[in-house]
Amino acid sequence: MGKKVTFKPYDITIEVEEGENLLRAALRAGVHINASCGGEGVCGKCRVILEEGKVECPETSLLSEDECSLGYRQACQCRVVSDIVVRIPPESLLDKKTITRRRTGVSLRPSPINVAALKEEGLYNPAFQKKFLKLPPATLSDNVCDLARLEQGLSRQFGLRNLTLDFLLTRKLAKAMRQEDFQVTATLDFAQRRSRNPRLVDIEAGDTTGRHYALAVDIGTTTVWVQLLDLAKGEIVGHAADYNGQLSYGDDVISRIMHSQKEGGLATLQKAVVNTINKVTRELLKRHRLPVEEISHLTLAANTTMTHLFYAIDPKNIRLSPYTPAACHVPPVRASHLGLELPKHVFIYSVSSVSSYVGGDIVAGVLASGIYKEPKLTLYIDIGTNGEIVVGNQEWLACAACSAGPAFEGGGIRYGMRAARGAVEDVSVNPETSEPMFMTIDQVKPKGICGSGLINLLAALLEGNILAPNGRFREDLNTPRIRESEDGREYVLAWADQTASGEDLTVSELDIVNLMRAKAAMFAGYLTLIDSVGLKLQDIDQVILAGGFGSFINLENAIAIGLMPDLPRERFQFVGNGSLWGATLLTLSRDLLEEERRVADMMTNFELSETPGFMDQYIAALFLPHTQEDYFPTVTERLRTE
Amino acid sequence: MGKKVTFKPYDITIEVEEGENLLRAALRAGVHINASCGGEGVCGKCRVILEEGKVECPETSLLSEDECSLGYRQACQCRVVSDIVVRIPPESLLDKKTITRRRTGVSLRPSPINVAALKEEGLYNPAFQKKFLKLPPATLSDNVCDLARLEQGLSRQFGLRNLTLDFLLTRKLAKAMRQEDFQVTATLDFAQRRSRNPRLVDIEAGDTTGRHYALAVDIGTTTVWVQLLDLAKGEIVGHAADYNGQLSYGDDVISRIMHSQKEGGLATLQKAVVNTINKVTRELLKRHRLPVEEISHLTLAANTTMTHLFYAIDPKNIRLSPYTPAACHVPPVRASHLGLELPKHVFIYSVSSVSSYVGGDIVAGVLASGIYKEPKLTLYIDIGTNGEIVVGNQEWLACAACSAGPAFEGGGIRYGMRAARGAVEDVSVNPETSEPMFMTIDQVKPKGICGSGLINLLAALLEGNILAPNGRFREDLNTPRIRESEDGREYVLAWADQTASGEDLTVSELDIVNLMRAKAAMFAGYLTLIDSVGLKLQDIDQVILAGGFGSFINLENAIAIGLMPDLPRERFQFVGNGSLWGATLLTLSRDLLEEERRVADMMTNFELSETPGFMDQYIAALFLPHTQEDYFPTVTERLRTE
Repeated sequence: MGKKVTFKPYDITIEVEEGENLLRAALRAGVHINASCGGEGVCGKCRVILEEGKVECPETSLLSEDECSLGYRQACQCRVVSDIVVRIPPESLLDKKTITRRRTGVSLRPSPINVAALKEEGLYNPAFQKKFLKLPPATLSDNVCDLARLEQGLSRQFGLRNLTLDFLLTRKLAKAMRQEDFQVTATLDFAQRRSRNPRLVDIEAGDTTGRHYALAVDIGTTTVWVQLLDLAKGEIVGHAADYNGQLSYGDDVISRIMHSQKEGGLATLQKAVVNTINKVTRELLKRHRLPVEEISHLTLAANTTMTHLFYAIDPKNIRLSPYTPAACHVPPVRASHLGLELPKHVFIYSVSSVSSYVGGDIVAGVLASGIYKEPKLTLYIDIGTNGEIVVGNQEWLACAACSAGPAFEGGGIRYGMRAARGAVEDVSVNPETSEPMFMTIDQVKPKGICGSGLINLLAALLEGNILAPNGRFREDLNTPRIRESEDGREYVLAWADQTASGEDLTVSELDIVNLMRAKAAMFAGYLTLIDSVGLKLQDIDQVILAGGFGSFINLENAIAIGLMPDLPRERFQFVGNGSLWGATLLTLSRDLLEEERRVADMMTNFELSETPGFMDQYIAALFLPHTQEDYFPTVTERLRTE
Repeated sequence: MGKKVTFKPYDITIEVEEGENLLRAALRAGVHINASCGGEGVCGKCRVILEEGKVECPETSLLSEDECSLGYRQACQCRVVSDIVVRIPPESLLDKKTITRRRTGVSLRPSPINVAALKEEGLYNPAFQKKFLKLPPATLSDNVCDLARLEQGLSRQFGLRNLTLDFLLTRKLAKAMRQEDFQVTATLDFAQRRSRNPRLVDIEAGDTTGRHYALAVDIGTTTVWVQLLDLAKGEIVGHAADYNGQLSYGDDVISRIMHSQKEGGLATLQKAVVNTINKVTRELLKRHRLPVEEISHLTLAANTTMTHLFYAIDPKNIRLSPYTPAACHVPPVRASHLGLELPKHVFIYSVSSVSSYVGGDIVAGVLASGIYKEPKLTLYIDIGTNGEIVVGNQEWLACAACSAGPAFEGGGIRYGMRAARGAVEDVSVNPETSEPMFMTIDQVKPKGICGSGLINLLAALLEGNILAPNGRFREDLNTPRIRESEDGREYVLAWADQTASGEDLTVSELDIVNLMRAKAAMFAGYLTLIDSVGLKLQDIDQVILAGGFGSFINLENAIAIGLMPDLPRERFQFVGNGSLWGATLLTLSRDLLEEERRVADMMTNFELSETPGFMDQYIAALFLPHTQEDYFPTVTERLRTE
């Protein structure tokens, strides 16, 4: 149940989740309250007066008893538990201008991906199925081998013939068949791509059709996600995640590839990610009290480099021109062969990649979002450590990787960091005073700024006219927050006494150039792909944002700095972890699984650096939001009216 | 070039291979010379006079210089190197009767199985083939993954599509393709049973089509054979063999199965046979100076128990009623997975079994001999540790295992032994004196009697009227060679001072009962199978003998004791190691490989103990040669005329 929060004197009301932090609610509503400790509650600047309703908050020494009884609260310490009305005290009142500049937090439409939808569409049909068989017991007049008896049963009871067999099964058959008087459950795989024959995967004594699980795994360069699926009930049981163990060997795919070229490097990286998957899977199974033996399948999606490293396939040529992966389609392989702690009969199916920098994670996302079967023209954007884009519809799909660099994951930015504890996330800047208001993840002293924080800060500085469209800070502002540095001018987001490190937390013009390059690469990518098929940006019917990053992004701010195209906001939707969803859906739907390679083959890869026009588009995009104002009509309009 | 040997005064001439031992030539010609040291040259009894031609022989103290100059030689020490005439000295002359009773050594027609015949029949078409590809080098405008480039090449150059891929290949591709500028050789497997798609097995840099080898393996309960095949030239390179390392854990399949039920027993047996294959293969490769990397395939044939043990599939139920194997068809599995020292891309294909006691070795023999595609009615007999028989033609095949027991491999016979150094092999008995003449393998002092020796001895005793048709020794013979013992009467083949052990070497009536049971089980098996389809023994157009044993058997003697049916001798032929030949031909012919499972499925298995009439036939056959004389017309005729 959402709760309403009304901010006086502006009479701005927004709806928030029960338990939402009040300072965050203010940030989302575009209501500025000075707050410079990141939400830790130590600066005491974010005072508000609670006029109606209830909040939960701890006692604090920064407010006197009198103040408390008058309704004063520290916004960063309050959790909203009913509809409330709060007043920003007069000392913090801002002029009208600030308020009108507020950006409504565009709430992205939730993704339509779920099991119920799959069932509705008639696509719920897992490739892995269990069949219960009552076989006639062996006698002297009918003493065919156990395998033949099983095959006969599958043929007679289910019309299944010409099965492909897993060798290891021959070792389990005799015992399993005799344990419950020739009543057995066979696990079958109907997904053998490139072959019409179902594959006999496993056999168990008795009727185990009610217990049947599978895993869907997304190996991100940074994070590994594992989703546990109940194939008997057709439900998602749960998921868990952890940092990719390869992080110790480099933050991005290039540094990982370089590490793989060292003596033993490939094996080390392979083991690292396998260990992570094992650990996350163990946790997940423990949490849901499931024995690992009941898992019969694993579907995997990852970018091309992560896929190579997981399989211990040398990724060397991904990094070297002309950027050829060894294999975009990896044949099924026994999970235990790669060191995964899963039953011997579990094979790994991985989603096909398209090219060195458009991997199975993107193909999985395309499959999950269904854009390959829709008439609408869709732009699919995944911003993670790299940026990948897909444009197209049911008839064609063009894709490219943008060498955006890791700026939006904090790379190449002096105080940039991943979205972890202490990262500045929500931020606004008072255009009159240039004073910031921000919150950190877990509300502790700020350590650095994460990607969404950088976008929000950049947008705030730009719209507050503190930063010029060319990425330079204005020289005429009378504030200690802007000062000279080795990296051009810089803006001080938090003073040393308020930060975790005890240093000033700043964003310099050099940082801003790096962010502009990254967003320019993305935007030039969209335009180039769209242009290559003779269309225009306005022809895009739908924009789908994927990736962990996408879930925290403030769309309005991302458009304001020119990272996202300035299209009607209702055309945007957020798909979450498209890669994990894709892997999940492939596990739940044989029909989708069978489309997998066709969709990958349908995606035409563009090497942007080789594509005419890209460089011009890139240069033109090195401006906030863009040198061509007509690409950003609403942003231009807003900046102009201020 | 054969050499002629004429024996005077009988004027019997036979043709022998150059270098043949003269005593053996006499045995084959039915010319009796007393010789009781097994050919070691120490008894000096086998004196002959060389009248014409030349022999090679060492000097001996048992002949004086005078005797030598008169032409005396020790037959057991002579090798025939030219046409010769030898005279049996008067002191050894036998009466006419003995001579007329001699049995011409039926020389079995050589098997038609060979690569040339396969090529003539248009069946030479190995499932594993190498294809040389010149691929276009990768460029920025054509940077598909290496695997896709390879697939495109195979499609464009050879029209091959929809390949099944071996996962491990993805790890080799990138390096192999760049080593010789995108010129590579792909190894393909066109044998994927149950699927139409060729399988991509391996890739190598450059053109390696000229070097391509495979192995055919026969795992016998006693001996493991490995044949090395040159798939590039279509030639058999050579073979090697060794005792099955499992022999330490039991002589026959039943004792092996029992060992497999002990803690760790199955793994021990699996390792033992794998070690043997590894050892034999190493020797073979070393002898032919071939690197193991050039082997791309292994085809295996073995009886059902040996197959289970090789794959570490529990064979428990093979031994327990109702005698169900776990799997008669084992899916292909990576050789290295089972511990074979072969390249990672080598998979094992094994010949399907029919039942617990009619295994892949028999199916391989049926395939090798081609009886499944001939209109002639054929009886296929394999006598090894067990006896298996197949009857049929292109329309139907019936098969059965005869619980013959290991008598013909020396089991259950007091001085029985395998055909190894010191085993009595060729033997005849002087019907007048009951004195024996025999030769041992490697011509050393006798240690025991092997299967073919037992058959020859039994036939000699029977035809010399020393043994009665009911298996009892005559009581009225005045010879110290026949005497009472704990096991009934017994015949002394060699006295203690002439044997390796220093004990008398004997054959007792109990031994003879065991031999009669074994041969009765075989003969009753033929009759039962033939009868079950409403045919008679005389309808058999062709008898094929298989198995190591068959190569040493004296056909006439085997018929004389009732082990083989008394059919016109020209209907018999010897196929050698049918199992090894079958595995070889399957490696050389994709067409045969594709027939393999169909032929196994075509073979109807009879459990003889459950088949009406078998026990009566068995009882009737417990006689030498048989209670019904009309089954053995020529033997009866000969015994009658003597």
